[in-house]
Amino acid sequence: NKAAMSEYMAEPITENLKERLAAGGDMQAQMEHLVLTIQKAVITGLTGVCGAVRVDRWVRLGRGGGGISCVLQDTPVWHKAGCNVSVVNGVLTERAAGEMASRGKTLLPGPKKFFAAGVSCVVHPRNPFAPTMHFNYRYFQITNDTNETQSWFGGGQDLTPAYVNEEDIRHFHGTLKAACDRHDPTYYPRFKKWADEYFMITHRGETRGVGGIFFDDLADQPAGHYLAFLTDMGNAVVPAYIPLVVKHKDDAFTDAQQEWQQIRRGRYVEFNLVYDRGTKFGLFTPEARIESIFISLPLTARWEYCHEPEEGSAEAELVALVKAPREWA
Amino acid sequence: NKAAMSEYMAEPITENLKERLAAGGDMQAQMEHLVLTIQKAVITGLTGVCGAVRVDRWVRLGRGGGGISCVLQDTPVWHKAGCNVSVVNGVLTERAAGEMASRGKTLLPGPKKFFAAGVSCVVHPRNPFAPTMHFNYRYFQITNDTNETQSWFGGGQDLTPAYVNEEDIRHFHGTLKAACDRHDPTYYPRFKKWADEYFMITHRGETRGVGGIFFDDLADQPAGHYLAFLTDMGNAVVPAYIPLVVKHKDDAFTDAQQEWQQIRRGRYVEFNLVYDRGTKFGLFTPEARIESIFISLPLTARWEYCHEPEEGSAEAELVALVKAPREWA
Repeated sequence: NKAAMSEYMAEPITENLKERLAAGGDMQAQMEHLVLTIQKAVITGLTGVCGAVRVDRWVRLGRGGGGISCVLQDTPVWHKAGCNVSVVNGVLTERAAGEMASRGKTLLPGPKKFFAAGVSCVVHPRNPFAPTMHFNYRYFQITNDTNETQSWFGGGQDLTPAYVNEEDIRHFHGTLKAACDRHDPTYYPRFKKWADEYFMITHRGETRGVGGIFFDDLADQPAGHYLAFLTDMGNAVVPAYIPLVVKHKDDAFTDAQQEWQQIRRGRYVEFNLVYDRGTKFGLFTPEARIESIFISLPLTARWEYCHEPEEGSAEAELVALVKAPREWA
Repeated sequence: NKAAMSEYMAEPITENLKERLAAGGDMQAQMEHLVLTIQKAVITGLTGVCGAVRVDRWVRLGRGGGGISCVLQDTPVWHKAGCNVSVVNGVLTERAAGEMASRGKTLLPGPKKFFAAGVSCVVHPRNPFAPTMHFNYRYFQITNDTNETQSWFGGGQDLTPAYVNEEDIRHFHGTLKAACDRHDPTYYPRFKKWADEYFMITHRGETRGVGGIFFDDLADQPAGHYLAFLTDMGNAVVPAYIPLVVKHKDDAFTDAQQEWQQIRRGRYVEFNLVYDRGTKFGLFTPEARIESIFISLPLTARWEYCHEPEEGSAEAELVALVKAPREWA
């Protein structure tokens, strides 16, 4: 299907997606279309700056669904940048149900099937002054054996610089706030606070970066409201982030500044492997594609014993910021 | 106390250790002496090859106990090598009790205090042909409010090469087996198998390295038996491992071989942050010293998207080995 391939990064995961969309579009089809569209827009933004993309389309062997992974690696601008789409379904494991219950969700009784469609992306640029960015938007639906269904939306988007540039941070937060405000004026303040709590490396007493937004289990409004909200948030990714990379990709830097970037990348790995909900869900999903889950990990990282930034340095400024989140928009 | 400082790497954690040992020695004192002695022997072995050591003695602020961390970092031979002693006590958290119960231990009823003494060590050499080594020996004791006590011993020692050298692996396993055999002929086969199960990176379907021994919750024999066993295992660390580093520290290597070492270091990080019992216990212990827990992490690591060793290569040989553990002694 040539038309589908130019609209998306690869043919959709579901064979009859076009037909279901043309027929009005159930929420599963609309979400698959949305995550594929966001992926296309983001990869177009990334390749527009630098580099060719590797595209892998995969299916879950013997289980339902699959995904498309797009990765740019070791190019002049990008250490590693990836954007994944996955559209999967199956039987909800006890472990996954337990994780959902543990964050306060009351699930339908009985054995459950699930459907999940999501897009997730992590971009690690090479220049220490160009920040790392992550986003993830997802839809989750469960159905029990008496055919009751329950569904919710989640997502987030956050920025992780190695050095503080207040103008950059205000631009990123401001763009997210403007997109949120079009849907509900309470979203940005609530979701900004949620991000400060969620992207927390508890054992370090610091946030992963300078935050952004985070939300999960949204289900109070009609699905159409959230679909429109996620569409706008997806559209905000490129304008919120790409200008920061364009601005800094050719900044001069020292070996010591690159080492500091690598130490902060180590913190990124700690957050993702110890705390991140999406990573854990992925690692414990049978037949998950590990290489796609781990595009979030940086190309390289560093752990120095007892590294302490010099008092008053630019490195110390960043540490102060992740120990006490501020308002940016 | 000058005498204590030459016998150990720093003054003991417990003020009256010498007196308690002279008076016959309760098990807590004997274990503190043992872990301090093992630390001294291992650091002497490491500095004998190369590099000066940084020694940090720390106390748990407002809680019981403390530790001594010894680290060699970024020297010509060692990327990062650390050996920690900790001797701590306090109230057993629900979370820690839950972890213990989840591996099948039946704990004393009621609220519990704990005492833990342990030595742990991870050595990451610079040369890709010199393997990484880890060991940990520990004693755990709990006491409930009616003064009943329960105690057990645990530990392990394993080797993680980036390239397969069968002679090296046989030397390492053979040395451990000889030390085990002096105490119980069933120990090595049981604990070797236990290591193959424990040091498993489940999401990769591979072991962290080529194994060694692992055991936990040992409590059937009198404490004196296990103290003698751990003493011998501690004595076996230097002869099992240091010769392998001396043999390979000056081997020639290419950039590609170093990159492969870095990819395997990434796997090491995955195991430690996602699965390792000791790391998790540390991360969730209030007022734990994070820098000491994370001496296990390599100085640098690498994650390449979809890296696949060439068929028939030395890298592919290592992958085959970690996917299907073998017998070595």
